[in-house]
Amino acid sequence: MSDLDLIQGYDPRTGEPAGAPIPATPSGDVDRIVAAAQAAVPAWQAFDRAAALDAVATALDGHVDELAALADRETALGVPRLTGEVARTTGQLRLFAGVLRDGTYQDTIVEHAQGPTPDLRRVNRPLGPVAVFAASNFPFAFSVAGGDTASALAAGCPVIVKAHEAHPHTSLRTAELIREALTTIGAPDDVFDLVFGFAAGLHLVQHPAITAVGFTGSTRGGLALAKLCADRPTPIPFYGELGSVNPVFVLPGAASARPEAIASGYAGSLTLGSGQFCTNPGIMFVPEDEGLLDAIAEAVSGTVGAPMLAERIHSGLVAGLEEFAAVPGVRLLAEGKPGEGPWAPTPAVYAVSAEDFHTNAERLREEHFGPVGLVVTYQAGQRPTPAGVGEGHLTSTIHLDADNEMDVAAARELLPQLERIAGRIVFNGWPTGVAVTHAQHHGGPFPATTAPAHTSVGATAIRRWLIPVVYQDAPAALLPVPLRDSDGKKE
Amino acid sequence: MSDLDLIQGYDPRTGEPAGAPIPATPSGDVDRIVAAAQAAVPAWQAFDRAAALDAVATALDGHVDELAALADRETALGVPRLTGEVARTTGQLRLFAGVLRDGTYQDTIVEHAQGPTPDLRRVNRPLGPVAVFAASNFPFAFSVAGGDTASALAAGCPVIVKAHEAHPHTSLRTAELIREALTTIGAPDDVFDLVFGFAAGLHLVQHPAITAVGFTGSTRGGLALAKLCADRPTPIPFYGELGSVNPVFVLPGAASARPEAIASGYAGSLTLGSGQFCTNPGIMFVPEDEGLLDAIAEAVSGTVGAPMLAERIHSGLVAGLEEFAAVPGVRLLAEGKPGEGPWAPTPAVYAVSAEDFHTNAERLREEHFGPVGLVVTYQAGQRPTPAGVGEGHLTSTIHLDADNEMDVAAARELLPQLERIAGRIVFNGWPTGVAVTHAQHHGGPFPATTAPAHTSVGATAIRRWLIPVVYQDAPAALLPVPLRDSDGKKE
Repeated sequence: MSDLDLIQGYDPRTGEPAGAPIPATPSGDVDRIVAAAQAAVPAWQAFDRAAALDAVATALDGHVDELAALADRETALGVPRLTGEVARTTGQLRLFAGVLRDGTYQDTIVEHAQGPTPDLRRVNRPLGPVAVFAASNFPFAFSVAGGDTASALAAGCPVIVKAHEAHPHTSLRTAELIREALTTIGAPDDVFDLVFGFAAGLHLVQHPAITAVGFTGSTRGGLALAKLCADRPTPIPFYGELGSVNPVFVLPGAASARPEAIASGYAGSLTLGSGQFCTNPGIMFVPEDEGLLDAIAEAVSGTVGAPMLAERIHSGLVAGLEEFAAVPGVRLLAEGKPGEGPWAPTPAVYAVSAEDFHTNAERLREEHFGPVGLVVTYQAGQRPTPAGVGEGHLTSTIHLDADNEMDVAAARELLPQLERIAGRIVFNGWPTGVAVTHAQHHGGPFPATTAPAHTSVGATAIRRWLIPVVYQDAPAALLPVPLRDSDGKKE
Repeated sequence: MSDLDLIQGYDPRTGEPAGAPIPATPSGDVDRIVAAAQAAVPAWQAFDRAAALDAVATALDGHVDELAALADRETALGVPRLTGEVARTTGQLRLFAGVLRDGTYQDTIVEHAQGPTPDLRRVNRPLGPVAVFAASNFPFAFSVAGGDTASALAAGCPVIVKAHEAHPHTSLRTAELIREALTTIGAPDDVFDLVFGFAAGLHLVQHPAITAVGFTGSTRGGLALAKLCADRPTPIPFYGELGSVNPVFVLPGAASARPEAIASGYAGSLTLGSGQFCTNPGIMFVPEDEGLLDAIAEAVSGTVGAPMLAERIHSGLVAGLEEFAAVPGVRLLAEGKPGEGPWAPTPAVYAVSAEDFHTNAERLREEHFGPVGLVVTYQAGQRPTPAGVGEGHLTSTIHLDADNEMDVAAARELLPQLERIAGRIVFNGWPTGVAVTHAQHHGGPFPATTAPAHTSVGATAIRRWLIPVVYQDAPAALLPVPLRDSDGKKE
């Protein structure tokens, strides 16, 4: 058994192993799991899935302390944040239970026959078993019981999660609780399972019975999986959430009206979760305004480093920063205090003029996954533009003084450009913190996501796992229930 | 100038050149066309696109005789069919004008702030310039002014069509009429253009400013383009409608109740347009019922061949049939009368037992683009299944006697299986003829389409060209109009 066959978690606070190693899932087991999932599709389609999702939520809530403690040992994200994240995760499961009860996700369109036009009735059905690749940075909300799992189960698709190596015991325990809850409520428990290891993940996405893949992670890993999905004999959709630097534009009116609030909000958003957020504000454009730059420097100086999720993530950040700091015109604006333990970076903000940024934009717009930001200063009297920040982001943010006509005019000019590069435009706030609601859209043009019409957060995330089927001139008795006329018959 | 640089149409009735050759579009011209299209996006987004689509429809209707005559010379599909197809095409443009006026395509979701949850307002926006590859078999409805063009223009996306080589002058004239109509109504005419030639098409899909591709055609050509789209530095969606054999299941009750009606309907659907329909019923399962088989043989004997669209299509059919007829157990059931001219095949129906079909299903389920069908006979007392017909079809059809309990039970067993392999399930009818309506879904699992959640016919075809953007806590003055509260303000 090689190292690759064992998944070992670590305590980020010490760099020491945390918990026993977990064996990787052999490909034969993956095959059995997928076959069982496929066999469970009809039973799951017929089951009261809203009740099942509620039951899973209740089970996880009932074990919140155990789960948060497990995850804290493997991620060092802290018990308060992790307790909140369990609540966010169970809230998400309940949101999708509500989506199922509401029923509009089925997108039914009923047209009675008219003249030569036949009776046509369209409804969504589930794709089939799907593979979900868990992320490292949200051990609950984007992991085993996260948004991809909740939305796919809601759609009627069995889910097989490939666990993230950075929190294996959290993953295993979450999966146990999900399966127990499904069994207890009488649902087919084969609609959910968990696999471990790189090879199992590759085997999974290439399995003929897998019908789609959800992924949250690095651009490099995501593109490799996307290619595998496209190159299958039967290509399947790949819903990948990859990289984003989430450009922020501070307009002059806002900069002079509330420098301290902007500075402290920025420092908080940048260092939240040791900067390990896909919506981390990586590049911020600010006017050349001494007051704001001083306030940012002061706010960043007050931050403290925290352990990152894995040795690899920490070393990747450090290596990336060396390149970054070497770009002409880039200077260190401020640093926070070093964190404790071997994997804790020092929060840092660099500054560069807009002119130097544009000269080296390709190097400077690289995403640095961690508490590190770049402030780009533009000259007074100029307006910032997103030129150079790249084509695709999950978010973009504008800070403006809504009573300042110059700010409003500058925002009006920015907006059409931001609409083309970002899935969410935030005003006078910060991109970290993604509300799980009906209107939410957590997506964006490539490389933010590989499927920019879709979101991985919010009620419409269910659409990724559904495809339509239309019944033409079907006898009433053979119509699916949602397509029958209100009297239960047809016409 | 090589042969590849000239696009020559032919008269399918004689195999002789039809009209002057048209030069292929050089890549520099493609670049200029795409740049102009991209520059036109904001003006097109702001324009009254419903009025523009109506104007295009009116222009085409005003030239229906000219267009039908041009297309008849290049396709030999006949003036009546082509006149009807122009009407279908302009009806489709008007359907999308209606979709725009209705506004629900924008899929707005507005959520006011509540507690810690921000104000979130989501709306669809156009992707950007798109490339459309015209099909050979519908020189209007799936070509220059067809469903892809109409739906993309409606979405706010400029369209660049790559003309199909089989009807170049029809394509050119249609494009002229579209651009004239756009100019007359004051729309930016750069939102529509046409290119000719294989190389121009490849250049187009790889152009950085192209944001999506629509395609109707062969599985081989479609897969090659899909791969190009996936391998771009910025991958883009590829909406391809590829191959489908559209399995039909005749249940025993229907076979005995109405053998002649089924036989004549089948022969008509199979030979419509010389069999050149993506919804052609390629494989039909029937009970071993002498009456029905005799009726099919008689109906097919009464059919007459008609010219195919291109020499290549005709020779491809002939080559495929040789392989087909050589499969063990396959016998010729009936032939029609030979058609006139060099490219007219003889309609033919082959028969095979269900047992022999399943032994050689991979060879027998190949699509034959033309008036050629396979009848698979299943034993009395057995129920037909879609095993062996392949994973993805645009349609599947059930013929049943709705008063026959055995038929209804068999249909009930078939339906969940058909839902998994087909986008449209037709009852007691034929798959050819695709109504352009709101509920229509013209799509299906791969290889029927490369994006099975989407349709290329019907109102929801517009969804392919839209992506969402969400505004978080936007000042009222900066919200797009559809996202404002009803009083024109915000809250």
